[in-house]
Amino acid sequence: MIFIIFLLTLLSHSTTNASVLDFCVADLSSSQTPSGYPCKKSVTINDFVYSNFNSGNTSTNFFKFSITPAFVNQFPAVNGLGLSAAKLDLDVGGIIPMHSHRGASELMIVVQGRITAGFISSDNTVFIKTLSKGQILVLPQGLLHFQYNAGRNKASAYLTFSSENPGSQVLDLALFGNNLSSANLIKSTLLDPAQVKKLKAIFGGSG
Amino acid sequence: MIFIIFLLTLLSHSTTNASVLDFCVADLSSSQTPSGYPCKKSVTINDFVYSNFNSGNTSTNFFKFSITPAFVNQFPAVNGLGLSAAKLDLDVGGIIPMHSHRGASELMIVVQGRITAGFISSDNTVFIKTLSKGQILVLPQGLLHFQYNAGRNKASAYLTFSSENPGSQVLDLALFGNNLSSANLIKSTLLDPAQVKKLKAIFGGSG
Amino acid sequence: MIFIIFLLTLLSHSTTNASVLDFCVADLSSSQTPSGYPCKKSVTINDFVYSNFNSGNTSTNFFKFSITPAFVNQFPAVNGLGLSAAKLDLDVGGIIPMHSHRGASELMIVVQGRITAGFISSDNTVFIKTLSKGQILVLPQGLLHFQYNAGRNKASAYLTFSSENPGSQVLDLALFGNNLSSANLIKSTLLDPAQVKKLKAIFGGSG
Amino acid sequence: MIFIIFLLTLLSHSTTNASVLDFCVADLSSSQTPSGYPCKKSVTINDFVYSNFNSGNTSTNFFKFSITPAFVNQFPAVNGLGLSAAKLDLDVGGIIPMHSHRGASELMIVVQGRITAGFISSDNTVFIKTLSKGQILVLPQGLLHFQYNAGRNKASAYLTFSSENPGSQVLDLALFGNNLSSANLIKSTLLDPAQVKKLKAIFGGSG
Amino acid sequence: MIFIIFLLTLLSHSTTNASVLDFCVADLSSSQTPSGYPCKKSVTINDFVYSNFNSGNTSTNFFKFSITPAFVNQFPAVNGLGLSAAKLDLDVGGIIPMHSHRGASELMIVVQGRITAGFISSDNTVFIKTLSKGQILVLPQGLLHFQYNAGRNKASAYLTFSSENPGSQVLDLALFGNNLSSANLIKSTLLDPAQVKKLKAIFGGSG
Amino acid sequence: MIFIIFLLTLLSHSTTNASVLDFCVADLSSSQTPSGYPCKKSVTINDFVYSNFNSGNTSTNFFKFSITPAFVNQFPAVNGLGLSAAKLDLDVGGIIPMHSHRGASELMIVVQGRITAGFISSDNTVFIKTLSKGQILVLPQGLLHFQYNAGRNKASAYLTFSSENPGSQVLDLALFGNNLSSANLIKSTLLDPAQVKKLKAIFGGSG
Repeated sequence: MIFIIFLLTLLSHSTTNASVLDFCVADLSSSQTPSGYPCKKSVTINDFVYSNFNSGNTSTNFFKFSITPAFVNQFPAVNGLGLSAAKLDLDVGGIIPMHSHRGASELMIVVQGRITAGFISSDNTVFIKTLSKGQILVLPQGLLHFQYNAGRNKASAYLTFSSENPGSQVLDLALFGNNLSSANLIKSTLLDPAQVKKLKAIFGGSG
Repeated sequence: MIFIIFLLTLLSHSTTNASVLDFCVADLSSSQTPSGYPCKKSVTINDFVYSNFNSGNTSTNFFKFSITPAFVNQFPAVNGLGLSAAKLDLDVGGIIPMHSHRGASELMIVVQGRITAGFISSDNTVFIKTLSKGQILVLPQGLLHFQYNAGRNKASAYLTFSSENPGSQVLDLALFGNNLSSANLIKSTLLDPAQVKKLKAIFGGSG
Repeated sequence: MIFIIFLLTLLSHSTTNASVLDFCVADLSSSQTPSGYPCKKSVTINDFVYSNFNSGNTSTNFFKFSITPAFVNQFPAVNGLGLSAAKLDLDVGGIIPMHSHRGASELMIVVQGRITAGFISSDNTVFIKTLSKGQILVLPQGLLHFQYNAGRNKASAYLTFSSENPGSQVLDLALFGNNLSSANLIKSTLLDPAQVKKLKAIFGGSG
Repeated sequence: MIFIIFLLTLLSHSTTNASVLDFCVADLSSSQTPSGYPCKKSVTINDFVYSNFNSGNTSTNFFKFSITPAFVNQFPAVNGLGLSAAKLDLDVGGIIPMHSHRGASELMIVVQGRITAGFISSDNTVFIKTLSKGQILVLPQGLLHFQYNAGRNKASAYLTFSSENPGSQVLDLALFGNNLSSANLIKSTLLDPAQVKKLKAIFGGSG
Repeated sequence: MIFIIFLLTLLSHSTTNASVLDFCVADLSSSQTPSGYPCKKSVTINDFVYSNFNSGNTSTNFFKFSITPAFVNQFPAVNGLGLSAAKLDLDVGGIIPMHSHRGASELMIVVQGRITAGFISSDNTVFIKTLSKGQILVLPQGLLHFQYNAGRNKASAYLTFSSENPGSQVLDLALFGNNLSSANLIKSTLLDPAQVKKLKAIFGGSG
Repeated sequence: MIFIIFLLTLLSHSTTNASVLDFCVADLSSSQTPSGYPCKKSVTINDFVYSNFNSGNTSTNFFKFSITPAFVNQFPAVNGLGLSAAKLDLDVGGIIPMHSHRGASELMIVVQGRITAGFISSDNTVFIKTLSKGQILVLPQGLLHFQYNAGRNKASAYLTFSSENPGSQVLDLALFGNNLSSANLIKSTLLDPAQVKKLKAIFGGSG
């Protein structure tokens, strides 16, 4: 009996305030702020678990890659924690084309096959390496990089990020997958008009 | 010819200052600061690669687990990037006993077998789940947690952290693996003297 | 007359926008975000004052201590300011048992009596000291620590924290004050079953 | 046809979640948080453009200066970006009197005329310089500073800040433009009563 | 025997790297960085203790106040922790004149007597209150404020700050305690020449 | 006489510690840390002034643009302040080709002529606008963008950044101005081999 009373006393400052903020699972239905989503009121262990990496259906795309993201919009538990992940699957010959993440550095752990990855620094130096299963590569924030299958079998990797919302800008889509006018595109890249036209057709761009 | 001149002009503000800070690979021989180690002057692609996860020699310890860290002291490329990783191997019956990370949240990706993981929040709620290959669990910063092999075969996971230097405080070692006096320990935990004596013997504590 | 016109002109960009954010007193009725609570619309000086430390009723608990927190949930003015406080009262023989704060470093100022305080670092080193009135001890973020009355009279201290929401995980409550199964608890701590049973009884745990 | 399918696949994780947070244009109608305003749901290029600097009507005030701010309340696009700007116009003889910004360092670029600017550091050292068109001065966060027209013609400058909400505390208004009692004011500044009375009259203060 | 081997294994990643950064006690002999001082190589419990508050010799100054700071330069343990403290002693009639802290919010805990404290926000609103022993006042970062003894006996308070290096700009010293020319001072404050001359004499200013 | 004594007393905690950190002008000769350069020991007002914008010699390059940066390596005063600037000059027909800044958002203030600027968000939306003198555009961190002269006369702008070290990755130089192999380049961009060869010749690339 005394123990229960004791317990209530000891806990009093947390039980009267349910909202001690050990974590802030995103309430995706509310408006974001610069620090992330408002917190969901009530959570269970299932909020902290993400299971889509083992879905099995990693049907790859035109570039023969598949990305399964566990960013804040897919995995609300990472909201505010400065951390997220994604699964990369590369078919034979597959590649994630040149891209960058405005909001995070990336740490890639190869879990199957062999992957060649490269990034380019602000002074235009190329850093490139072929990695085997179990090796890690770090790709600093905001720099162009690419990853391709360097082997004769499927390859895959876990990608982790220093933000719950890294953002991804795929170069070909940013240039050729929208209505950026060919004139502006040619002027800002020096690409030939024929090249622009060809890639706009592939990536669905207009203008 | 004009192109080379052009190139030098265009690059001029970066070539005269070699130290554009896209990254800051740690110079482990220098003193740390609150933001991390000073930066290594010259880097190559090999600075960004970590290969110890696939060493094969994951001989486990008393608790039948093995941790291979890729924190800043093992993998200097993560210095200042707010991100690191570790490999967890669990033999059958293995467990990482109760511990916490003062400096990072953790994102665990199971890559082999089945792992039961649990954490306890500040209001003493228990969050616990058994995960299979491909599943992710998030463990918020600074809270006590544990992970054990829930299957009949070896299990392993990649652990990633929201800091290059997460810190790890293993409860049994913090309590029983040093010279914290038995009197202070008993007073601050209410453990029985016999229990303290027994565990100090196991974990090498004195006092 | 000209002065009033002048005044309005000079002030124009702040008077048209009432919400200049010198501070952000928490609106506790709104959902938290990772950066804290939304701001209360209208504030007075009383929002910035907290008076519960001098309530006089510091009836202590089982461990003969009393904590009066002035964290964001009790003192909304600290929202977003990265700072909070608490009052610690220790009866003769009193102790705050082993605990940690996931979200803040602590600076303790002894204001009455003598207090022995200790913390354990990630490499399991014990740092311990007995402090008198007027002395300060710093306890780094996320590490296990404890404080007990080292004198023959009441002791008290002001605790300040580097976060408006430090969180507190009391070891005995985290282990024995919830439904964490005895099997998991024993496995993850190596405590004896009898010890677990005894402490679960004291701290109200089940399972 | 295959291209469109490809495109949808490639884009799937962003199209299903419209709220990828490259930016967070402020929804000024919502409550602020410590990290800024919640984000506006839908934006266009016009949200990113601010045009009031070229309004022409820089009618100056009593001190013969005019400030046109582009802080978060005037230019919601800077919300969460840690950056804002203002235009300073100084008539002949004009001055921004002694003031400070609690939340930002300032970088002043002179674009017309000659401006003398000074700041005072915490150890009471005076840093002062007269700048011409094209010169930059940095004014560190939270320190008292002033800027005046040092030439025989109008002068102007662009002021940029390391926060979207720098805050401005103009010394004369803070002291003499409110109901701070003369007794308290005299005690806390050692100004003479007559001086206080005179300046309260100018700046509209009472008390 | 097996236990010692076990222990070494379990500890291996921390013992080989002594520099796990739970804290970073300042090495005051090294150059500061924007994040603070480099870390001292070897520390003991005494590094975490500060004892000057109980020195007894709080001989007050011209304004009848005494400040005993425990900022990073006096108390190196707070380096990088975002937290510091100071002791304020006020004789009867004593006052800390108008001042601001560029780098921290302040939380004042009155421990003796009665203290009137006030601060002025960016929109020139005055917030003022007389506090008794045990009451707390929060003073937001970078705003002008003052504290004076409101009683008939000595008063004192503990001041804590959200930075290890808050900085203090005392208005009278910033204006009148240096070589800021009277011409510039008068122009930027509208103070009368006689007033400036008088206060420069008191505070040791020239020019 | 009493005043001098007073002054010394009042100043005592700052004069004994010269290193109060109101600012941290970079010591460019020391190694950087993740938070920036160590601080220069002794500074004058000239450290806070940058004068290269008005050099007059804005000889533009191949793209008919000139950038004069005032980043930390050119203007050490911005070290640690989270703020920097650059001057952009565009000849008739000039353009800054497609580029991004990994470390900062950009705020562009047009000061002469007309400039068309565009950026592309992570969901591949194009944001584009032609700005006149006095207009501001915000370009969020890490996204591809470009700026060109939209008028018949020279144009110029002040660019300010939310970091002292924004970094710049110019797309054409990152792709064609180094030894990234044509095979890898073609694979990661889908550009035609002839296009790659042509642009490698222009930008000085090999491989």
